[in-house]
Amino acid sequence: MVDIQEVKRLRINFKTLEEFENFREYGLQELSMKEDLQGNIIDNDSESPFYGVYYGDKLVGRMSLYKVDAKYDRYFEPPQEYFELWKLEVLEPYKGRGFGKQLVDYAKSLGLPLKTNARQRSDTFWERMGFEPLTYDTDRDRGENPYVWFPQGVKEQKPE
Amino acid sequence: MVDIQEVKRLRINFKTLEEFENFREYGLQELSMKEDLQGNIIDNDSESPFYGVYYGDKLVGRMSLYKVDAKYDRYFEPPQEYFELWKLEVLEPYKGRGFGKQLVDYAKSLGLPLKTNARQRSDTFWERMGFEPLTYDTDRDRGENPYVWFPQGVKEQKPE
Repeated sequence: MVDIQEVKRLRINFKTLEEFENFREYGLQELSMKEDLQGNIIDNDSESPFYGVYYGDKLVGRMSLYKVDAKYDRYFEPPQEYFELWKLEVLEPYKGRGFGKQLVDYAKSLGLPLKTNARQRSDTFWERMGFEPLTYDTDRDRGENPYVWFPQGVKEQKPE
Repeated sequence: MVDIQEVKRLRINFKTLEEFENFREYGLQELSMKEDLQGNIIDNDSESPFYGVYYGDKLVGRMSLYKVDAKYDRYFEPPQEYFELWKLEVLEPYKGRGFGKQLVDYAKSLGLPLKTNARQRSDTFWERMGFEPLTYDTDRDRGENPYVWFPQGVKEQKPE
């Protein structure tokens, strides 16, 4: 019986980066972290914007949270600091077991509003997670599919 | 024998919007166009940021091009107007027949630099299209995978 573990903030080291290679959304960000580590530009076990869930000792899900300053907030009323949630992904054989929800619940527990881009018809997933679509604004959204989660007392910012 | 046609700028009407429903990247942008059309906020056959290729009378591929003003250019040197290329997608049964390349070639023919976010390990496709990865910049790219196409005389803008 393998224990399901808590969501953890991932530290950048060669083991984590090797595990990242299993994910579809692997790209320049991960390659750049690897180069920085190899070149000693960042230390082993540096903080990263990634959070993950392990099943046994295998990383089976991850997401990235990027904190945006209140002065750039175009989504929430009152304008405030919020998290952009990206690269939420659970490895194929581990889907449907609640790992995605575990990650999203963790993000909510941080207390800030959340904003994501619901891609490839993932709307129903985000709605199950308590997210809502925003009113589409051509200039702001430019093709994105903005879904947000509001903590209590926060609502949608109306486009100017 | 069905003729392969030229790339066309798509006009917003109920037929186009119905065809958009076949694509995976269908979301708030398309729903908002539909509402605007239904509410007579936009006219039938209005211009759209979408370009498409037809096979016979079926829309089998599309992309969106969004022109960005030179003052917001953080990718190219000298800084200039460029296109963000999004939502490039060819319907599954029509893949591997050059429709994607036809769309990208059209985008290049407009003469401005192009920038895209190469998602889900599509790097090799973009490289075949003549695109190059940029040096990852955490603040600018925030998890994106920026690939660009340089017209002659244009190069990468170095991060500040």
